[in-house]
Parts: sequence; structure tokens; C-alpha cells
Amino acid sequence: MGETLKVGVLGAKGRVGSTICDGVEAAEDMELVARIDDGDSLENLVSAGAEIVVDFTHPDVVLENLEFLVGHDIHAVVGTTGFTEERLEKVRGFLSKHPGTGVLVAPNFAIGAILMMRFAQQAAKYYPSTEIIELHHPRKADAPSGTARLTAELVGQARKDAGLGEQPDATSTELDGARGAEIEGVPVHSIRLTGLVAHQEVLFGTEGETLTIRHDSMDRTSFVPGVLLGVRSIKAHPGLTVGLDNFMEF
Amino acid sequence: MGETLKVGVLGAKGRVGSTICDGVEAAEDMELVARIDDGDSLENLVSAGAEIVVDFTHPDVVLENLEFLVGHDIHAVVGTTGFTEERLEKVRGFLSKHPGTGVLVAPNFAIGAILMMRFAQQAAKYYPSTEIIELHHPRKADAPSGTARLTAELVGQARKDAGLGEQPDATSTELDGARGAEIEGVPVHSIRLTGLVAHQEVLFGTEGETLTIRHDSMDRTSFVPGVLLGVRSIKAHPGLTVGLDNFMEF
Amino acid sequence: MGETLKVGVLGAKGRVGSTICDGVEAAEDMELVARIDDGDSLENLVSAGAEIVVDFTHPDVVLENLEFLVGHDIHAVVGTTGFTEERLEKVRGFLSKHPGTGVLVAPNFAIGAILMMRFAQQAAKYYPSTEIIELHHPRKADAPSGTARLTAELVGQARKDAGLGEQPDATSTELDGARGAEIEGVPVHSIRLTGLVAHQEVLFGTEGETLTIRHDSMDRTSFVPGVLLGVRSIKAHPGLTVGLDNFMEF
Amino acid sequence: MGETLKVGVLGAKGRVGSTICDGVEAAEDMELVARIDDGDSLENLVSAGAEIVVDFTHPDVVLENLEFLVGHDIHAVVGTTGFTEERLEKVRGFLSKHPGTGVLVAPNFAIGAILMMRFAQQAAKYYPSTEIIELHHPRKADAPSGTARLTAELVGQARKDAGLGEQPDATSTELDGARGAEIEGVPVHSIRLTGLVAHQEVLFGTEGETLTIRHDSMDRTSFVPGVLLGVRSIKAHPGLTVGLDNFMEF
Repeated sequence: MGETLKVGVLGAKGRVGSTICDGVEAAEDMELVARIDDGDSLENLVSAGAEIVVDFTHPDVVLENLEFLVGHDIHAVVGTTGFTEERLEKVRGFLSKHPGTGVLVAPNFAIGAILMMRFAQQAAKYYPSTEIIELHHPRKADAPSGTARLTAELVGQARKDAGLGEQPDATSTELDGARGAEIEGVPVHSIRLTGLVAHQEVLFGTEGETLTIRHDSMDRTSFVPGVLLGVRSIKAHPGLTVGLDNFMEF
Repeated sequence: MGETLKVGVLGAKGRVGSTICDGVEAAEDMELVARIDDGDSLENLVSAGAEIVVDFTHPDVVLENLEFLVGHDIHAVVGTTGFTEERLEKVRGFLSKHPGTGVLVAPNFAIGAILMMRFAQQAAKYYPSTEIIELHHPRKADAPSGTARLTAELVGQARKDAGLGEQPDATSTELDGARGAEIEGVPVHSIRLTGLVAHQEVLFGTEGETLTIRHDSMDRTSFVPGVLLGVRSIKAHPGLTVGLDNFMEF
Repeated sequence: MGETLKVGVLGAKGRVGSTICDGVEAAEDMELVARIDDGDSLENLVSAGAEIVVDFTHPDVVLENLEFLVGHDIHAVVGTTGFTEERLEKVRGFLSKHPGTGVLVAPNFAIGAILMMRFAQQAAKYYPSTEIIELHHPRKADAPSGTARLTAELVGQARKDAGLGEQPDATSTELDGARGAEIEGVPVHSIRLTGLVAHQEVLFGTEGETLTIRHDSMDRTSFVPGVLLGVRSIKAHPGLTVGLDNFMEF
Repeated sequence: MGETLKVGVLGAKGRVGSTICDGVEAAEDMELVARIDDGDSLENLVSAGAEIVVDFTHPDVVLENLEFLVGHDIHAVVGTTGFTEERLEKVRGFLSKHPGTGVLVAPNFAIGAILMMRFAQQAAKYYPSTEIIELHHPRKADAPSGTARLTAELVGQARKDAGLGEQPDATSTELDGARGAEIEGVPVHSIRLTGLVAHQEVLFGTEGETLTIRHDSMDRTSFVPGVLLGVRSIKAHPGLTVGLDNFMEF
């Protein structure tokens, strides 16, 4: 492995940030050189020699953080939300004068969710039938989940690209809602159950066989392996990258 | 085991009937003494010494068959559909003069489906959350399936009896249908997928844990063990019995 | 619901104890009147008016605790381990002079695990084939888990009681270990996977159909509903009760 | 879709062959022009105008069949077993003089099994833990199944290529066989259950999340979509192709 990566964390005292700090400290190929939170100066990152900084902070401050980081040729792995195309354009502006620096902005760091979506896209064209079941705790406000919507859109597009028509379905008597919500021709079913965390199944069926891809996110630490993958990969990817899947091989 | 049961089958040439004949012949404690189909005389059952007769025929002829069987003190295991309360009353009439003879009329011979429903009833009161997912081939006309409806009614009633209120569900933004159909307060989701046969999951959730009961019916032979259970039990249960669950211990 | 139960917790500052305190406080029909830990006097339970006390402490102190509680006619729900028959006999001794007081000692408060085992016992006699898969985090020292062993013993006994013989298995070429460990004639398979918590599936198979009972324990809070069930039930069960299943209806 | 493919089937009266005939007849873009079985002349294929012939026959006759087919510039899709490297070399010999003709030889036509193996290979490097559970009917002679062995080898190789070490496993007390058979460092567990057909799960785990890929083969028709895919693809792939995965995009 050789080299040890010097990593700083912004928002280090928050729930997410402290989990990332634990993950960096447990990684044999990384050293946590700076924990920064509200009130700490970003200069500490420079003096600590941070090469890569993880930012799970707030939309209000993330652009300022990135301007500083890129300006000091520090690579960034960003899980902060709220990145519109306009905001991404600003990041590209920062990077234009620092062509060797990399910034990863990713809406989803769960490796399993990314693989599930990719595999679903790959499988879609071979199956006349596809449905999605997502299962979450009952405190969730939206149904279906964002991941389920995105999966349905990707699968629906793959079906279209392959020239598949409507899914076979002889339902003539339906109790309202039984067949789920339809997104791009793909039925999506949302389960809300005390005790669950975040889970999704994509089911494919053809003559005599089915294929099921299931992702279970058991707790909040599930984004850590994805963040570490981002940290390990960012130096080799200068410029702006949107989506962790760009650092994955399939 | 001792005794060998002498069994006759009505509708023996049909798909279902011939599967039952195979099952009876494979059972070590049974002897198939008569295969009867259209055009054969019921008297053959008597001359063959049938003690128990299985009837998977047609609503048009089943009452006539039962009158004959009971009149000759032959026990009957009946999977033929269409038994209204009025029809059951007629069977009770046949039996009134033959108190030692038994007739089992059952809408469902899949032992696993019966166990699933029973367990779901037993578990219901311990869980704030319950949902049902049923999965079938896409040629099915009704959604949800009859078994899913019945399960939801049983579970919903058990929840009521236990004083459980509404299920926790913070959904505030729902794409129409995502949360399924509601039956007695229990969400039911219907999946239709090429390659599937008949499957159902009942999911229960409470703080930090879930319990799932799943029944998979892989092919048409799945009713055979239930029919054989009926054949083995009927002699000990004179009179009319409705539902195979009455012959099962839980 | 009427009455509010006044509950005290021993070992209230430990991880388990504080989780129980949270659970009691969240329950509408309970009031947490005392949190006791090392150094606190048990007399506080009396002055606080505790009717029922939960003890998840240590084998070294639990008998002393119970002598005090029973002596003051306070009911006890006990998850502390290490109860041999000799120790249970001592508890019976305490209770002999307080016939109206109840003590529940339970090795397992996960309601789902108890239901899974009960349902597995009930289903066993209807299926020629039964296997158990248990899945845990890779830090677990024993394989199979204690729950899997107990389930296999219960299912194996139920098979014997029903006169079932050996399970069908034509395996003639086996890579060592592929068919799992055998406990009372039931194959048990142990999966160890990062990211898992504690999970178990019991699979039953007969001609054309299978039945699966699955329990997923997602996090440490999964014993709370069982403890609360114990608290709600103990007043109606004077004397010593071993096992939470005695307070459950099936 | 345009063009209709003219297809012949060898071994058309066998169980497999007749299922393929049904599949070809049901396909809108194919026409079944010849059903050949023992005693029929292969010349019938030529006179019927077959462009592509499916061969699920016997190792004793398949080379003769292929020599005839290639000699008449008829493409072949072959599921017959027993193809050693020596036999494949003979097929290459036939093809050397017919560069426009294609022959597909595939050991496995179940698309879902191929996708499962491919996805498992792709996912392997992202997960410290991987285990395989395969589930079959109890008449199966070998444990683990051939597909499970192959999957374990592919996953084990992918782990090695990614520099992953041994899987985490703190098991210190094991009942013999509980942790399964080990193939290339991957534990494999074999379930044998009446009622099952052919099923496999590949489980991956990392911090806080798991990914599961499951393939269920419900009945014998599950190879048909793969055979049809071979028929649709073979004209564009002159020469010898070994493995249906070469005609699939991932």
C-alpha cells in the first residue's frame, strides 16, 4: 500500500462527521490529521498537512470551504447536499486554475446502492418483468424513496433502449394501490415498518426464473466505505467528478 | 402405521385429479382402489371398497357425488369450489342420518398457506407494524390475491382484538399507489412477475427487529400434502368440517 | 389502559439499562420512578413506589437484588444471565413467603426469536425437510448461534414426536462442510458477514411448496418490547416464571 | 424486428427439445421450420431452409451434427454437454472453411445465473465479506452445486485481484460443518429441501450494509430465454463462441 493519505474532516463534531473520523482512523492507509468544526479556522487544514478533506457540512458553507480547499490544492470529497448545476459550475470555476486538484461531489456514498442500481440497469433488458420493493422505517416522509425513484428511472430507460414494451400484467380487478406506483413503466412498492432501516429489492422475471438484487442498509455507518473509496480515488481524478460511481469499476 | 387406507379419486383424469392419484399411489399408508371420471359409475367406488374418496370435480356434480358417498358411508375430502352456506347445509342434511361419516370441504389445501395465516394471526398483536407482499405470475386477474386478502383480514382483526391502533406511518408525500392497498388497516402489495408461481410474505416490525413469514408455492403439486392430510384425518372427524386447519395442530 | 405501572430499573446507567429506561419512558402506560446503579441504595425503589423492577445487572448481585425486591413485594423482570437450577430454587425460596409477588427470569427477550422458535415447532411435523440458516456479524465466536442450536433441538424433537424419519438427501459427493452442521437431524448453516447484526431463517419444504420463517434483529433495542411485555404481564403471574414465552399467547 | 429467423431443433422429441420447440414457436421473430429426432435425416434441415439449428442432443452425436451443420453453412446453438478442449478444437476445424458460420457452445443457458455470476465478480472487490448459499431439491447428488463452485471461484479470484485478504471471522467454537465448505476463500453453504428447484444467493457485506444477489430457477423452462438469445445473436458472431455471456452486455 505504501503511502499514507493525510485526511482532514470538516464538520467533525456532527454525527456524520464523527463517524467519518472513526472510519478514517480505522483505515490502515489513512491518517486523520485535522478535525475541523464550527469556529475552527480552515488554516488548520493547511498547517496539519491535509492532502484530502472530507466535507459533510451545510449548503450554506460548503462553497466557501471548497474555494479554500481548491485554492490550497487540497482535494475534496463532498457529501454535503444542495448541489445545483449552478453551484457545480462555481466549483468548476475554482478548479480551472488548479488543474491537478480533484473534487468529488456525490449524493450517495452507499456502495451497495450504487452497485444495485448499476446491476439493475445491466439486467433490465433481459427480463420482460421488473418491479421494485423499497422498505424503510415508518418515520420516512416520502414514498417511494429517492433511491427507488432513481432506480425505476434507470431501469425504465434501459427497457426503452432495449425496445421492450409494456410489462405483462393481466390484472383486471385491482384494489386501489395494490399494484404500486408506476415510474417509467416500473411498478414501485413502498413498505414502512418499525424496526427497518433502509432496504430495497429489484426483482426481475423471465420464463421460469427470477433474479433479485437486494440492498440492506443496516445503520448510519453504511456511507463510510464509500467515503473512504472517494478519499483513496480522488488524487487520481483531478477536476470535478459528480457521483461516486465514476470511481467504481463494473 | 398399520392400516392401509383405501382411497378413490373422482375427476381422476383431470390435471388436478391425476396429480392426486399420483400422490395417493406414492403414499405408503394408502392404496388407490378407484379412479373415476365422467361416464364412470359411482358404484365402482363401492365395489372397489373405497373408504375415503377425494372429490376435485365441479360445482354442478359435487352435491350429487356427496349424497352418494355419504349414503354409502364413504368419507369424503372435497376441494371442489362453490360451497355456499346453503350448499353446506345440504351436506349436513346428508350426514344427519350417517353420524359416523366425515366430509371435509376446504377452499385451500396448501398446508404452508394455512400455517402462514395462522402464524400471522398469532404474531400480529406483538408488532406495531404489519404489511403483506404477495407475488404471482402476471396472468393473474385479481390483485391482491384471495390469500392475501384473507391474511390481511385475519391480521387486521387480531390487531383490533389486541387494542392496537393505526400503524405508524409518517408518509406525507406519496406517489399514488406506492403504499399499497389497505385491507383492515393492513397495507397489501401485489407483485406480478413472469417466472413466479404463487408466493406471499407477511412482514412484522417492532423496535429493532422484524419477523417475516414467507410461503412459496412452486408448482401445482403443492396441494397434494394437504389432500393426503385430509385423507388421513377424516375418519377421526365424523360430520362436516370446513377448512383443513381444523385437522392441524398449532 | 387505565392504570400506569410504576417501574424501576436496576443497572440504569449501563448500555442495556439505559436503553430500557428509554423504553419505559416512551411507553404510555408506564412511569419510570427510579433509576438505580452501583452505589445507589435499593431503598430508593421503595420510597419511589416502584411496583415492578427490571434487573439487567450481574450474576454476582442479582440474587441479592431479588431477595430485596421480593421481600418488599416488588415484582421483578430479570434479564441477568447465569441462572442455574440451584439459583432458581433460591428465588422460589424468596417467593414462598410472598405468594402474590411475581418474578420473571428470561434468557431471551426478543419476541421475534421466541415466535420464530414456536412457529418452527408448530410447522415441523408437516414438512419432510427442515434446515436452519443463521447469519451474524463476523465478531461472533460461536457457530452455530445459541438460538440456532435451540431452534434445531426444538424442531428435531417435534419431528421425532411426529414420527418423521431422516430428511431426504441424495448427496453422494460433498465438499466437506457444504451440508452444514447437524443438530438433532436438522442441518444448520452459519453465515458470518460484516454489516449483519443477528438474523435467522428456518426453512421448511414439502412437495411443491416451502415455508420460511425469518427473524432479523437490527439493533440492540430489539429486547425492549419483550421487557415491556414482561413488565405489563408480571403482576398477573405471581411466583417464578422462566421464559418470556409463558406470557405470550400462540 | 423485420426478419424472421428460420430455426430447426435437433432432439425435438425429448423433454428439453420439445420445450425449446415451444419457445421458438412462441417467439414472434422466429419460425420453427424443422423438428428432427432419432431416425430423421439431417437433410430435412436443409430442405426446410433452417438458418440456425439448436442442438440439445447427446455427446455421442453432437460432433457429427455440427460437422453437417457447418458444412451446410447453418449456424448452431449447442447445449449438449461433454465439450472438452479437444472436442472444441474439432469444431474450430469444421468452421475454418466456413468463416461466415457461427457455433455457440454453452454449458449454461440460464441468463439469471450468468448475470448473478457476473454481478458477483463486479461486486466482490468492494466487500470484505462474501458467502454463497445454494438451495436445491434433495435429489441432487453433489454439494455444492456446479454453479456455486464456479461462482466461488470467480469471486475468490476477484478478491485476490483486488488485494483483499482473508475474510473477517472470529469463530473460535464451531460445530463441524457449520461454517460451510470453503472454495477459494469463500464459504459455500448447500441447502437441500423438498419443494425447491434450483436457487442461489450471493451475499456481500461491508460496514453497515449488505448486498444480496439471488437467482431462482423455478422450472425447466428457465433455459429457454437464453437459447432464444443465442439464436438471435449467433448470425452476428461467426466462428466458435464458448459461453452465452459472450453475447450479453453488462
